[in-house]
Amino acid sequence: MVKLIVLYGPAADPDAFERHYADTHTGLAKAIPGLRRFEAGRGIATPDGSDLPYQRIAELSFDDAEALQAGIASDEGQAAVNDIPNFATGGVTIFIAEIDD
Amino acid sequence: MVKLIVLYGPAADPDAFERHYADTHTGLAKAIPGLRRFEAGRGIATPDGSDLPYQRIAELSFDDAEALQAGIASDEGQAAVNDIPNFATGGVTIFIAEIDD
Repeated sequence: MVKLIVLYGPAADPDAFERHYADTHTGLAKAIPGLRRFEAGRGIATPDGSDLPYQRIAELSFDDAEALQAGIASDEGQAAVNDIPNFATGGVTIFIAEIDD
Repeated sequence: MVKLIVLYGPAADPDAFERHYADTHTGLAKAIPGLRRFEAGRGIATPDGSDLPYQRIAELSFDDAEALQAGIASDEGQAAVNDIPNFATGGVTIFIAEIDD
């Protein structure tokens, strides 16, 4: 199993970010072919009380790296990618992780 | 459900990092009281071929924020936290996320 890990930096307008994320972006992400699991969460705190490094995390699980790359390259994947600049005013950090057994 | 998200920056010696992580740190993390799920993965790529921002991600799930804070504050939690400097030569970014329904 591999995951696409998407980390959204703190947005200029967190409420607007959350609205677009819930109303538009989540639907686009969940439509990506080959997606096995979608899990997302909102940053609420840090253990030491420092500023939040990320406003949100999203994790998109696929069977393997080939399925992930095919999903991202699909029309649905590109629609989700192309939507990111519409709301991610705090930037985005993305990487692919192979999940431990 | 809340998750402690732990993101490890690229280590100076990735193989030494992986050995310590597998042989020592994972066991310490899994011993934290109240832990409901532990999932971890190794960064393998980025979608655009840029450098990996993180070598590893670990996610520790708890029933709620109070359980998470109690787990981290426990002797087992502090043993895991205090082990991080022993191997995380690339630094660590940590935050708490509330998982969407």
